[in-house]
Amino acid sequence: MAIELTKNEKDILKKFRKVKNEAGTHSPSIFVLQDLLPDIEFKVDACYLSNPYATELFIEYLQREIIETGKFRDLVEYYPSQNVFIAEKLSKKLGVNKENLFIGNGAVEIIQALMHEFCQEGKTSLPIPTFSSYYEFLKNPDNICFYQLSANKNFELDVDDYIKFIFDNNVDNVILINPNNPNGSYLKKKDLTKLLKALKHVKNIILDESFIHFAYEDEMLQLESASNLIDEFPNLSIVKSMSKDFGIAGIRSGYLISSKPKVSHLLKNGFLWNSNGLSEYFFELYTRDEFRKEYEKLRKKYITEFQSFYNQLKKIKGIKAYPTKANFVLLELIEGSTAENFCNKLLIEKGVYSRNCEDKIGLNGEFIRIGGRTKSENQYIISAIQEILK
Amino acid sequence: MAIELTKNEKDILKKFRKVKNEAGTHSPSIFVLQDLLPDIEFKVDACYLSNPYATELFIEYLQREIIETGKFRDLVEYYPSQNVFIAEKLSKKLGVNKENLFIGNGAVEIIQALMHEFCQEGKTSLPIPTFSSYYEFLKNPDNICFYQLSANKNFELDVDDYIKFIFDNNVDNVILINPNNPNGSYLKKKDLTKLLKALKHVKNIILDESFIHFAYEDEMLQLESASNLIDEFPNLSIVKSMSKDFGIAGIRSGYLISSKPKVSHLLKNGFLWNSNGLSEYFFELYTRDEFRKEYEKLRKKYITEFQSFYNQLKKIKGIKAYPTKANFVLLELIEGSTAENFCNKLLIEKGVYSRNCEDKIGLNGEFIRIGGRTKSENQYIISAIQEILK
Repeated sequence: MAIELTKNEKDILKKFRKVKNEAGTHSPSIFVLQDLLPDIEFKVDACYLSNPYATELFIEYLQREIIETGKFRDLVEYYPSQNVFIAEKLSKKLGVNKENLFIGNGAVEIIQALMHEFCQEGKTSLPIPTFSSYYEFLKNPDNICFYQLSANKNFELDVDDYIKFIFDNNVDNVILINPNNPNGSYLKKKDLTKLLKALKHVKNIILDESFIHFAYEDEMLQLESASNLIDEFPNLSIVKSMSKDFGIAGIRSGYLISSKPKVSHLLKNGFLWNSNGLSEYFFELYTRDEFRKEYEKLRKKYITEFQSFYNQLKKIKGIKAYPTKANFVLLELIEGSTAENFCNKLLIEKGVYSRNCEDKIGLNGEFIRIGGRTKSENQYIISAIQEILK
Repeated sequence: MAIELTKNEKDILKKFRKVKNEAGTHSPSIFVLQDLLPDIEFKVDACYLSNPYATELFIEYLQREIIETGKFRDLVEYYPSQNVFIAEKLSKKLGVNKENLFIGNGAVEIIQALMHEFCQEGKTSLPIPTFSSYYEFLKNPDNICFYQLSANKNFELDVDDYIKFIFDNNVDNVILINPNNPNGSYLKKKDLTKLLKALKHVKNIILDESFIHFAYEDEMLQLESASNLIDEFPNLSIVKSMSKDFGIAGIRSGYLISSKPKVSHLLKNGFLWNSNGLSEYFFELYTRDEFRKEYEKLRKKYITEFQSFYNQLKKIKGIKAYPTKANFVLLELIEGSTAENFCNKLLIEKGVYSRNCEDKIGLNGEFIRIGGRTKSENQYIISAIQEILK
């Protein structure tokens, strides 16, 4: 049954479209929305994608070590350390050389740097649907080769077919998000290794592991990053956002693991003080075993709760929930509603902010993306969706 | 009389040289130094340059509005707003169109963007001594034309002579820091306007006003920015750091006022979420009259105290204090000490971190730069310098 909007909801939709239009292919921030729609009570942010338990953990440390001790002023007043010094500390924990590590003002700064500095020449392949910045940051859009993932195959990447596509199109720069955004499909490490081995001739392989902390290959929920492959594959660059797994999008933290010449190229003419004080503090925390141990528990707890959330979503009539190994799920509305009406209703009536995927290239149909939150928030989202589809 | 170091001081100097070497032409952060030299008690940071009263004001607001209300979590957890939305709010306060405004992750990100995107072609002129990023971010260093400021003329810029230099060298991109860093010389607005009028043919004029809040033309201490000239001179780009005047280097805030095509060029392929939550909050504060009024008082108080600090420094035997309209002063050691020994002694014996200018191109002699702090810190710096020179 199609979802209809009331007059008031249509008015709000108009306002929302205006800011969405200005925001381009990305969602307006919670702050912009709150400004725009002061009458709406935002209850759950299921649009942006982050582990709220990890946010809490970071806030606890921050409160105890920085705010209560009065050290916060130092983080505000003093220049943060330069890129290389933060990288040096972090490198030990990541088990990579400091010369292979670059600290970013969020992963998106790193994506911009990679696309601008290394991918302007030659063709770039990118599976779609995807995170739009990868093609938007290319100055010449004619250089992009979209590789369509198939809804029939749950948007899963067929490695052999992608390799063939790359050869057939003489691709120079290969992009891969693992797990992929917006659908959450995951490429196992052995398949990834197969891909890397077949593509040694390619100039750049950019692997975005921003959601890797939510992926797993068995019930142990072990983290499987490709960062240990960096020496074997000099054309590999691994992009890592900390916003999602650590729930700290507001402090803009990310890193890049890449070959020494590429890291050195980036640092030679820029990226001097691109970290802020809070981000520097976070990376210092990240190197501490105690923090990592506490975080690890919350990571697994969050994954387990997300699995149950996903299983409940799968049972709801009227939507199709695609398989995912990320902390979000792509839902297809299969009974005639538009994604826009659905998201609008969910926001206005229930206070749940979700992602209308109508602007995603490579998605044909009505799709929305929902991120996992705390157990009780997940429960609230389930009920809200059920009521709206009723 | 030359300053000699003890054995212990020489050992510390070695360590300091090592991090300084890694930091390039910029100073290691306080955090890196504290890590490196745990035995030294840092008492005053006179190396980085900021108004500590303004830091306090920001911290007060932050404490009251964000920390005590529990809103801090939102700033950490949520994605900040995109560049255009923060620009839109700020533009009203600055009296410029939002299409002329670009928000930066600190001024240094803006400098990098300008140099990379607009100044790779043609020659770039730059008065020296200067802030080194301007030439370091140029990918082809052969394109730079240094214009030597003369110590005999107190490093003041002779507008007519600089114009002639620009014509003689067929310069495409003109850079001007006003007041200049590291010496603090100031170009009055009428002279600046003269320069802009004479250089309408030039591709880019980059005016860095990062220290403009400390400059004044008469005893009213009125702020004289060139931001209202942006419509008249389409080749003008104004870079503005907030780190110095607002004492918030750790949150990385800055903006650029430039022509609409240039701002649009930057936003087209990048700079999506380059602000963090604290910076977004700061810019929101910046638009409030109440905050600006309180800040304005502290700005004038700080300038007045700095004037007295400068006058005391001028009287100290063994150093020459160059005239300044910034919040720092360039000191020349004229009795045989090296800048390195002086800075080292000041740090180790007195806990005062200052800037050894030996790596500054265009300074021949032994120079250090000292930033102004609170009244009592200024007093402490004066005594420390006097004792070291004794």
